[in-house]
Amino acid sequence: MSNNEDAQAICTWWRTSIIDMEPGRIAFRGHPIEDLIGNVSFAQMIWLMTQGNLPSDAEAKLLECALVAGVDHGPQAPSIAAARMAATCGVGLNNVMATGVNMLGDVHGGAGEQCAELYLDIALRLDAGNAMEQAVREGIAAWRKIHGKIVSGFGHRFHKPVDPRAPRLMGLVRDAAVAGTVNGRFADIGEAVQAEIGAQRGTPIAMNIDGATAVIFCELGFPPPLSRGLFCLSRSVGILAHGWEQMQQGGRNKGPMPPKFLPLHEPMGELE
Amino acid sequence: MSNNEDAQAICTWWRTSIIDMEPGRIAFRGHPIEDLIGNVSFAQMIWLMTQGNLPSDAEAKLLECALVAGVDHGPQAPSIAAARMAATCGVGLNNVMATGVNMLGDVHGGAGEQCAELYLDIALRLDAGNAMEQAVREGIAAWRKIHGKIVSGFGHRFHKPVDPRAPRLMGLVRDAAVAGTVNGRFADIGEAVQAEIGAQRGTPIAMNIDGATAVIFCELGFPPPLSRGLFCLSRSVGILAHGWEQMQQGGRNKGPMPPKFLPLHEPMGELE
Amino acid sequence: MSNNEDAQAICTWWRTSIIDMEPGRIAFRGHPIEDLIGNVSFAQMIWLMTQGNLPSDAEAKLLECALVAGVDHGPQAPSIAAARMAATCGVGLNNVMATGVNMLGDVHGGAGEQCAELYLDIALRLDAGNAMEQAVREGIAAWRKIHGKIVSGFGHRFHKPVDPRAPRLMGLVRDAAVAGTVNGRFADIGEAVQAEIGAQRGTPIAMNIDGATAVIFCELGFPPPLSRGLFCLSRSVGILAHGWEQMQQGGRNKGPMPPKFLPLHEPMGELE
Amino acid sequence: MSNNEDAQAICTWWRTSIIDMEPGRIAFRGHPIEDLIGNVSFAQMIWLMTQGNLPSDAEAKLLECALVAGVDHGPQAPSIAAARMAATCGVGLNNVMATGVNMLGDVHGGAGEQCAELYLDIALRLDAGNAMEQAVREGIAAWRKIHGKIVSGFGHRFHKPVDPRAPRLMGLVRDAAVAGTVNGRFADIGEAVQAEIGAQRGTPIAMNIDGATAVIFCELGFPPPLSRGLFCLSRSVGILAHGWEQMQQGGRNKGPMPPKFLPLHEPMGELE
Repeated sequence: MSNNEDAQAICTWWRTSIIDMEPGRIAFRGHPIEDLIGNVSFAQMIWLMTQGNLPSDAEAKLLECALVAGVDHGPQAPSIAAARMAATCGVGLNNVMATGVNMLGDVHGGAGEQCAELYLDIALRLDAGNAMEQAVREGIAAWRKIHGKIVSGFGHRFHKPVDPRAPRLMGLVRDAAVAGTVNGRFADIGEAVQAEIGAQRGTPIAMNIDGATAVIFCELGFPPPLSRGLFCLSRSVGILAHGWEQMQQGGRNKGPMPPKFLPLHEPMGELE
Repeated sequence: MSNNEDAQAICTWWRTSIIDMEPGRIAFRGHPIEDLIGNVSFAQMIWLMTQGNLPSDAEAKLLECALVAGVDHGPQAPSIAAARMAATCGVGLNNVMATGVNMLGDVHGGAGEQCAELYLDIALRLDAGNAMEQAVREGIAAWRKIHGKIVSGFGHRFHKPVDPRAPRLMGLVRDAAVAGTVNGRFADIGEAVQAEIGAQRGTPIAMNIDGATAVIFCELGFPPPLSRGLFCLSRSVGILAHGWEQMQQGGRNKGPMPPKFLPLHEPMGELE
Repeated sequence: MSNNEDAQAICTWWRTSIIDMEPGRIAFRGHPIEDLIGNVSFAQMIWLMTQGNLPSDAEAKLLECALVAGVDHGPQAPSIAAARMAATCGVGLNNVMATGVNMLGDVHGGAGEQCAELYLDIALRLDAGNAMEQAVREGIAAWRKIHGKIVSGFGHRFHKPVDPRAPRLMGLVRDAAVAGTVNGRFADIGEAVQAEIGAQRGTPIAMNIDGATAVIFCELGFPPPLSRGLFCLSRSVGILAHGWEQMQQGGRNKGPMPPKFLPLHEPMGELE
Repeated sequence: MSNNEDAQAICTWWRTSIIDMEPGRIAFRGHPIEDLIGNVSFAQMIWLMTQGNLPSDAEAKLLECALVAGVDHGPQAPSIAAARMAATCGVGLNNVMATGVNMLGDVHGGAGEQCAELYLDIALRLDAGNAMEQAVREGIAAWRKIHGKIVSGFGHRFHKPVDPRAPRLMGLVRDAAVAGTVNGRFADIGEAVQAEIGAQRGTPIAMNIDGATAVIFCELGFPPPLSRGLFCLSRSVGILAHGWEQMQQGGRNKGPMPPKFLPLHEPMGELE
């Protein structure tokens, strides 16, 4: 490679701290790939790539709990349905997966990120000397000004009264706190948020999977956008499994409902 | 910009015949953008960008017929359903559109391209001196070896007996041939293919929209992959309209069916 | 189709005002498709699908100006570069197009929408009886509280001093106002915004293509999100043209720079 | 839920063996989610979702080696570059990830699948009683008729002479065969293919990561399309890491090269 200014400009344009390559050599965050293969778990590799350092086994195991929990919520989830439909349209499995992941937007895949933002804001309020109750109350109020009344991470329109994933995840966080793997602070915050929302509306509300995985991701030091990113990795597993199952089931141009049903036509004024 | 080798390498890496730009100047295929705006139709611009030259008004009008015909086939089409679902997931309208277009694969959006390949192969057989009947019979046979029995562009699982778009499009191609805008050769080929398939199966078959638009695109000199590309442009209009309508209807994480219906669970062995 | 409650629920779930279909019949907004093909331009069809009614020829021509203006900005635009790279990765032209359109997000494709929001807010302030100068000053201030200092639609990092598309588009809007096709109110607003920003920073600023197309879309009655949607349709043309050109150029797994250049590796701390 | 025919039709339309859900209950392949969380690794969960059963720890560890190996190949890979560009365009991290995954097509992400097809075809030839040398020679010849001369999984345009991931992976497969975790048959086949290609061209060729991961996926019983699907999962990690790093680096509408470089304009005839 020439050494002049233009070459430097172009190489710097694509600079990265993640990977260092030369012919015959690949290193991630300073670790040669051949030292990682066979020695770190997939979850540890995910951590290394996103956080830049290697986690302990115990930290990786807790991360793994969150990754396992979020893989799928069935074909009534729009991302899964769309992936299954794509699998019948004559595109590759990579396109099928992209179709599903692309739909994990603010509403479908962003709850964990939004919830992590709330937890971290409350943590800052605690750091500033506020008591938990006040920090939670003010944190929720500030969050609602931006995001609206429904606090992401709590309640579930389908799993009533309880999302079975959340208590299991919270139990594992508590175990990890006892073992010293994590601090437990965000578990406290999450439960305080749950209590406060329930108190305000006068009836208990359950933490859902997004509320519980956000606790884990915060405990493990992931910034909020990675709560969404890690969820996308996790849900990619379900998207792949469903896309592949659909390919085996067959079908061509699968629509959302059997062909005998036709969408109702409503003249324009009546719709809005 | 420096003139050395590295700069040249990088500029050449991204070389293009489509656009020529400098600060304050944009030209497409040699035409300054300010001369195109207000003077050419959107269809003419599409032609200029993809074919490299400007069509006559009559050619552009025929292209426009094909573009108008393909805009939408309703929410039972997987691309439209997926786009509408995406519109409720908290992503931008650009992501909604990409979700739909991404699904226009070999099965959902590739019929026009596959049909154009057949037409052009038959045209080559005619050029080589074969009679139409033989060229069509051999062309279909050769095509089926690659693509399977069902010839793309003929028959429709929903519009029986006739897809209303096809005869209208073919009528306009015939008018254009009479007017000297196009040659009419691919209209002949398309109709001969229709007759041959019908004869072989012993019952008439109707040309569908893909068979008719492929006739138009071939008459106008577009290579087969652009039959798919132009269809994607056309269908993007429907995808946009449906995504936007869904945004106005509202909803969060719209699944493929109302929430009260749950996917049937079938143990693994029974599925395959 | 059966007439019971479940069937109704599913048909209503996918209700639409855009398209009405039965075997052998397709109508858009009440117009049979065979009446539209050959009788309306592609731009008129776009309008019908998104707005629900058919525009006059003059209105359609003005819409067409905006659609023509935005088709492409060359391979240094990330959407175009990504589409060209995708074209060498072994995916279909539909996937290539989706890759590009997907990237037209808030920053890359949202300027027109954001600018239209500003214009419409100023129009409301005028309706409330404010003078133009005050409405513009207060509108800009309110807009900046949400979106930040840089007003979308004005200035261009590449086309200095003038984006050649903007004055041409504005001239055509003015012509259309004289002809009575549009009111001209948003042209006034756009120019007043331009003057106010220039005055505030003490040096003139040019309206760019997003500022000018937003004027057109507002004059023609499109709500702000459709400013983005229509831009996505327009830019899809360039994405298609570049993807197709790249397919003809060939290449496998085209990266952003020639292979002889390697991304600079920078240890983590130095990057952020 | 009502029990009639229409309801059944719609529920059956979305039938699946992967997940079974009721309010408060989620089971994957018969395992309640709360039993999986904390008890299975992410790799085991990936296996359960795609293959339908739970692997042993040793099998999961071998799968994990392949998943770790493929996470990233830096910004000169088009999928990574496109994801980084998308991250500056104002879209969500989910859209960034989809952009990258979408590009892992036949050329960029399909090598493992194509190579697995070759291995499995050779295995069938062995089952039919052919000797390894003949099975390999005939298998390669048959494969080339479909896919062309260059056999996917062998040789690397960048890592010369050796892709450091391949020998490490093959060593771990051999260890697993000694331990009885896998049979070792596909390791034999892979090495025989490598030897045959080298003999045919008269100079040794190295197995690359796709050739080695295909060995692992075949040893573990994954059908060929899942070789691509699992690679997409693996590479999603790198896409996420790079997208996130780019978000931290900042930038708006990052193009493929620094703005001072402009794409070379070449008149049309010269390009093709």
